[in-house]
Amino acid sequence: MNEKTTGELENLRDLIDGVDQQLLHLFRKRLDLVAQVGAVKHAAGVPIYAPQREAAMLAKRRQEAVNMNISPQLIEDVLRRLMRESYLNEKDVGFKQVKTDLGDIVIVGGQGQLGQLFTQMLTLSGYQVKIVDKDDWQIAPSLFKNAGMVLVTIPINVTCEVIRTQLNQLPQTCILADLTSIKEKPLLAMLEAHKGPVVGLHPMFGPDVGSLAKQVVVVCHGRDSHRYEWLLEQIKIWGARIVEAKAQKHDNAMQLVQAMRHFSTFVYGLNLCKEQADLDNLLQFSSPIYRLELAMVGRLFAQDPNLYADIIFAQEGSLNAISDYIDNYQSALSLLKAGDRQAFIEQFSQVSEWFGDFAPQFQSESRAMLQSVNDMKHD
Amino acid sequence: MNEKTTGELENLRDLIDGVDQQLLHLFRKRLDLVAQVGAVKHAAGVPIYAPQREAAMLAKRRQEAVNMNISPQLIEDVLRRLMRESYLNEKDVGFKQVKTDLGDIVIVGGQGQLGQLFTQMLTLSGYQVKIVDKDDWQIAPSLFKNAGMVLVTIPINVTCEVIRTQLNQLPQTCILADLTSIKEKPLLAMLEAHKGPVVGLHPMFGPDVGSLAKQVVVVCHGRDSHRYEWLLEQIKIWGARIVEAKAQKHDNAMQLVQAMRHFSTFVYGLNLCKEQADLDNLLQFSSPIYRLELAMVGRLFAQDPNLYADIIFAQEGSLNAISDYIDNYQSALSLLKAGDRQAFIEQFSQVSEWFGDFAPQFQSESRAMLQSVNDMKHD
Repeated sequence: MNEKTTGELENLRDLIDGVDQQLLHLFRKRLDLVAQVGAVKHAAGVPIYAPQREAAMLAKRRQEAVNMNISPQLIEDVLRRLMRESYLNEKDVGFKQVKTDLGDIVIVGGQGQLGQLFTQMLTLSGYQVKIVDKDDWQIAPSLFKNAGMVLVTIPINVTCEVIRTQLNQLPQTCILADLTSIKEKPLLAMLEAHKGPVVGLHPMFGPDVGSLAKQVVVVCHGRDSHRYEWLLEQIKIWGARIVEAKAQKHDNAMQLVQAMRHFSTFVYGLNLCKEQADLDNLLQFSSPIYRLELAMVGRLFAQDPNLYADIIFAQEGSLNAISDYIDNYQSALSLLKAGDRQAFIEQFSQVSEWFGDFAPQFQSESRAMLQSVNDMKHD
Repeated sequence: MNEKTTGELENLRDLIDGVDQQLLHLFRKRLDLVAQVGAVKHAAGVPIYAPQREAAMLAKRRQEAVNMNISPQLIEDVLRRLMRESYLNEKDVGFKQVKTDLGDIVIVGGQGQLGQLFTQMLTLSGYQVKIVDKDDWQIAPSLFKNAGMVLVTIPINVTCEVIRTQLNQLPQTCILADLTSIKEKPLLAMLEAHKGPVVGLHPMFGPDVGSLAKQVVVVCHGRDSHRYEWLLEQIKIWGARIVEAKAQKHDNAMQLVQAMRHFSTFVYGLNLCKEQADLDNLLQFSSPIYRLELAMVGRLFAQDPNLYADIIFAQEGSLNAISDYIDNYQSALSLLKAGDRQAFIEQFSQVSEWFGDFAPQFQSESRAMLQSVNDMKHD
């Protein structure tokens, strides 16, 4: 590069830096304004996530972008990122308390990661939260006495037993709820142990989400739903979406979604380890798509093995799902061994057909994801 | 909501809309400034992706964000998104032509997706590009006569044969290069068929990337590297990173990365299809992590089965890799059948240990990805 070029570039870069500093000031202003919206909503008890307002606002900005010859996706992506930041900050303001005369909420397993998250959210919403963990059973009965709700969030493999043996003497009006990732058995156990209101919840997110905005919580109704309606309202105020489901239907879906997928990811990691794959080397060669997949595998192994053992070993049905999977794997492998390219293509096309409109939808979704993975790359 | 609340919210939303419109104006200004940088770089032949300048600029903005009580990740994410947009726009300006006295570039397979992408990039850089496709072999010899480079990008299963039978009479000085996703055999075939300069390339990205910025191209040297140095320079000017590798090492990594991963994804889709999974239902229950995984599976089936058959059937080594994988799957399944939770946890911990520092790194990377997947969600 000659001196003139260097000078021109430096000059332009100073101007860009100036624009970026103005961006920061606008961000500060926007975050403050949305915080004020949050405060108004907080006072009125309105949910923080307003999909319709969001959609209308994005549509207007997209149109304005087009008029200015800016890609509409650019402004949408940036505004979504800003909204995420505002959702994260909502927690600082606290949330409206929907039920003000509940009494205490006792969280059984309150020291677990999900327990801590719910303790935080409930406390931010003005509830009195007490915690019972493994070694606290002696003090538990005195806590239960004043409990308006008991929320169970302990490892799956002990959930039903704890419900049956420790939670069978709750006050009649107390709500009994759980956060276990399977629902049929815990719900049954709760209905047997307790004669009052019962509800099963499954938060469909990890405890490392910064905010509940747009996250999903599955609800399986147990008994006396009018008594815990406020709880669902409260969760909506946190920004989450409530999806109602029958426990059995939920559990069947989870066999495909959780147990099988986790198991398959586990085997993939195990395989890399046994092949003594050179991760540095793999990453060097990696396309964004593989980097993403590798990250999803590595993610599993950064977490508590007990958690995954619990999920995988909890459901008998998942053993069948996993066995079916291996049968399909074997039969696909035999195509490969026979070198039967044509049969592979036929099976592929069958599956494509079955995916139907979902396949192109997934392709465009994943393209957006891969682009954002590529954005994160640096030398 | 009462009237006062509605009024307050409307007022605040108007102010937010105003901020967002100012954002759009800053975006327009920034895109224009970066386009000017691009024009200066274009004239000087400097690569568009400048990692050091990028890192220094981001570090400054992050610090300024912290001083303004804004999350540094917020400004980094937004600036990365803006940079992506600018990279996309670079193509409109064109790129500096590194080698001005090359003669024609003939792309064998120029109608394929990757062939089209390279035709576009080379044309934007001022090269004369001619295309040979399946039915053009009659005219090929006349095109080859004036060729400074022949670039092969056709299905893997015919690559070596076409090289041997059709590309064995190129002018001595002509560069012979290929873009196949395996490298050892095509490279050998090229070295045998042609006595002049030979190089193998593997672009580590799909043809649907909008820009080559930050993408990786693997280079396996063949013969007379000083004769095709300009090509690697040219690719760098497009923004990509060149990673040099031995063909065999590359192919071994690809067995783990591509063949096995694609096969495993194929089986996962096949399995969903055979179980007649209710995709609507699965999506309703889906956490961001599963939505992402499902999207990665669906993505495969939106594409050409021949492409995947080519990749999976091309390498004999991948059959071994896939067989090893199924052995690991079987042995993990037997733990499950025996209900041996302890052994599962031990294996899990071994793999975690093997992942080492990569596990937490992948966890934080994937957290960022999952958050951006969640940002995209809407009702």
